[in-house]
Amino acid sequence: MSDVRLSLAEGHALAMRGLTHSGVSPENAAPIADVMMSAERDACQSHGLFRMPGFCTGVLSGRIEGRASPSVEDAAPGVVRVDAHGGYAAPAIAVGMPMLIEKARAQGIASMAVIRSHHFSTLWCDVEHLAEQGLVGFAFVNCRSFMAHPGGNRRVYGTNPMAFGWPRPDGPPLAFDQASSMAARGEIQIHLRDGKPIPEGWGIGPDGAPTTDPAVALDGAQLPFGDYKGAALAMMVELLAVGLTGGKFGIESARDDTSDGGPGEGGQFYIAINPEKFAPGGDVAATLAHAESLFDYILEEDGTRLPGDRRHAARERTPTEGFTIPASLHETIMGLCGE
Amino acid sequence: MSDVRLSLAEGHALAMRGLTHSGVSPENAAPIADVMMSAERDACQSHGLFRMPGFCTGVLSGRIEGRASPSVEDAAPGVVRVDAHGGYAAPAIAVGMPMLIEKARAQGIASMAVIRSHHFSTLWCDVEHLAEQGLVGFAFVNCRSFMAHPGGNRRVYGTNPMAFGWPRPDGPPLAFDQASSMAARGEIQIHLRDGKPIPEGWGIGPDGAPTTDPAVALDGAQLPFGDYKGAALAMMVELLAVGLTGGKFGIESARDDTSDGGPGEGGQFYIAINPEKFAPGGDVAATLAHAESLFDYILEEDGTRLPGDRRHAARERTPTEGFTIPASLHETIMGLCGE
Repeated sequence: MSDVRLSLAEGHALAMRGLTHSGVSPENAAPIADVMMSAERDACQSHGLFRMPGFCTGVLSGRIEGRASPSVEDAAPGVVRVDAHGGYAAPAIAVGMPMLIEKARAQGIASMAVIRSHHFSTLWCDVEHLAEQGLVGFAFVNCRSFMAHPGGNRRVYGTNPMAFGWPRPDGPPLAFDQASSMAARGEIQIHLRDGKPIPEGWGIGPDGAPTTDPAVALDGAQLPFGDYKGAALAMMVELLAVGLTGGKFGIESARDDTSDGGPGEGGQFYIAINPEKFAPGGDVAATLAHAESLFDYILEEDGTRLPGDRRHAARERTPTEGFTIPASLHETIMGLCGE
Repeated sequence: MSDVRLSLAEGHALAMRGLTHSGVSPENAAPIADVMMSAERDACQSHGLFRMPGFCTGVLSGRIEGRASPSVEDAAPGVVRVDAHGGYAAPAIAVGMPMLIEKARAQGIASMAVIRSHHFSTLWCDVEHLAEQGLVGFAFVNCRSFMAHPGGNRRVYGTNPMAFGWPRPDGPPLAFDQASSMAARGEIQIHLRDGKPIPEGWGIGPDGAPTTDPAVALDGAQLPFGDYKGAALAMMVELLAVGLTGGKFGIESARDDTSDGGPGEGGQFYIAINPEKFAPGGDVAATLAHAESLFDYILEEDGTRLPGDRRHAARERTPTEGFTIPASLHETIMGLCGE
């Protein structure tokens, strides 16, 4: 089957139809569709319409509350708390962001905890959003456990990504968004589909033995990047995204999981920092110019690039060229739309 | 030559004599000696009295201001700025900490930037200190550049550690403190001293070729842990510790460096979070008990340990047993004391 080409507007409309037909309210569907289209715009297919079936199965199975109305609490001068009430993360994040931004601007630093939510998308969107407002941003999210702790065999942590964004005076912000695991779970699944072994270091079997067999690694546990250092970051993400906020650790979310393919329940944690409050004399232009001098130094060498450069290059093309999805995925999504 | 055994009190007194005889004021020497003794107490020799010659040469050469009086500025409700005025970091951090703690307690989250300082010690001391006050803590510090950016050959980043601390209801806090580089610089130097090759992945030569020769790697550049993921963290540390605060990036500090063996000029950045402001119903005991359930789950498996466990085990022994340093180091320090 050939691929189906869509414009970003067509993709957004398709996502809206599929989500609302599955039982997601239009107010909640819009921010989810926005995030998927940000991913397609940046050629990050793994977080684009590829996620539609997962987003829909969770609400179709009744595990996720598609019509939840997230509530925002001004918990302290530097703290926003958002309760997603068992719904998706994207609408809860969208509802809390304005207060986070306002607090960070006034206080110099502020944070936002999102609880009782189901996260299934990227974090770079959120830290880019903060950086577009002139703020330095952190984001942390946990998910159900897939990854072992060093020395152990069983699953403890999610693939637990963290993201960081920095505003730039010209062009899109610098942002990275990286899992604590050596490889994305989807990459292991793709190796399985293609009948290829995985590199050493990606996973262990249920017995704890290193494996290059993707099926064995999927049955067992993934491994962190950088051994105990990546595991420490994964633990930090659990403690921030869940420990601090009262959500569910990856091990708790895994116990409750119905394996319907949708996102488990977890938590998110954000920090936003206003560089103006740190800049000597409040001269934030000098702060940003100084950072640009570091980026320039890095890029002087051939063969280097900055985090996000590939996404930003794609962002130039997709608004006019659109993007493609496999015809089989398109057919699945049309089914979710009842069309 | 045999080792010299010292009690922690004797070690502290020795450090005070050496620092003050080299030109460091007693007020500044005390927090530096405290940090070195915290390291010896925790059997972290690389940051104990081993650092005395480095601490002293910087002030003896006139590059570091041993009698600086750090100044603290209340820059915003969530921001403390400390100017070390060209002195050591430890006294500047000690002077700023009370305001950081007070702000974090009141605001829910607060941050501290330390500028124009020379950092040469551990970060886990600082995040443990925050966690002992019931706060979740982050610390970031850059140093002069030793590490390449992926795809490049030249030195861009310091070994740029970050630390994270979490309060525990019983016993010392959980804390990790990890460099962005694959190996500590000192480990490469020890391989050189012992005539042993270094593992692949630790460094490249000046030509960018991977090397297992420690001398070539020391001439060239170190590599980040986890390839581009560790490099992204190193960049984040530069941006937080220096970009935000107006200090010197690793590449700038390296240009100014006199190679006297002492610490280069850099910046530090701290974040402190009050879990009480996030805990549902303000029940921070429940927050901490929840986190303990994650730690318990990890430790149920044989062969696992938590970050800092080895340090905490040493902490049980050294107050009674003391610690040892090589006789040659003891002799050097006695020279620094003028004794």
